[in-house]
Amino acid sequence: MAFKLHDQLQQDTILIADLAFSKLLIMNDSRYPWLILVPCVEDAVEWHNLSEQQQSELFTETMQVAKIISVLQNVEKINIGALGNVVSQLHVHIIGRNARDEAWPKPVWGIGAAVSYEAEAAANLIAKIKTALEFHL
Amino acid sequence: MAFKLHDQLQQDTILIADLAFSKLLIMNDSRYPWLILVPCVEDAVEWHNLSEQQQSELFTETMQVAKIISVLQNVEKINIGALGNVVSQLHVHIIGRNARDEAWPKPVWGIGAAVSYEAEAAANLIAKIKTALEFHL
Repeated sequence: MAFKLHDQLQQDTILIADLAFSKLLIMNDSRYPWLILVPCVEDAVEWHNLSEQQQSELFTETMQVAKIISVLQNVEKINIGALGNVVSQLHVHIIGRNARDEAWPKPVWGIGAAVSYEAEAAANLIAKIKTALEFHL
Repeated sequence: MAFKLHDQLQQDTILIADLAFSKLLIMNDSRYPWLILVPCVEDAVEWHNLSEQQQSELFTETMQVAKIISVLQNVEKINIGALGNVVSQLHVHIIGRNARDEAWPKPVWGIGAAVSYEAEAAANLIAKIKTALEFHL
């Protein structure tokens, strides 16, 4: 398969898991629980240009990840976005927000600078998300 | 049915059509072809909290609208977003972008001020979108 994760996504994120259809990544930005799904489809750019089957698979995983994030501490609202103006490789942002986070109520993109995770904090959060995935929560 | 469109959405948009599941609105902002789907479900806030059937219906209409916008003049990229940090009533933004638009490559939210449509321009665009909907494009 010729799919390859975009260099910018590779650089900004940590891989959590390979789901059935997409790679699940976490942005290395401890200000928000900010996950990204990247469907493993070569040259995909627009969600609506995937096949109907692929559209649905990405959507199902988006809803699954949204549910997982929604139960994390301090998450009061989920933001979902498929933009791709800078990195055109199709990817879906799923971000947990609360009224005390840095960007609230604005979208997170372009607000301030990423604050990298401490190794232990990243490991703990990734472990929680993996557990939730295993239990199909 | 106790569903009622949020006052802010009512104020900022023009109704294009009542689709099978959602109201299709256009933002009264001629800077971008910016459509909004609002599922007619009382008290809906988070996409993942709809029933699975409702989740899919909103997603299907989102893809349909994305396809319609993608063929409009000057649209090079589709942005899809479900945020709801300001207006909590569940709504999905589907926005046609190009590299010469005011906000590019940033997301459109919070950039500059809306430029209302001239009546004829709005009518023309709405007519195009209605035609595309009728032909299931």
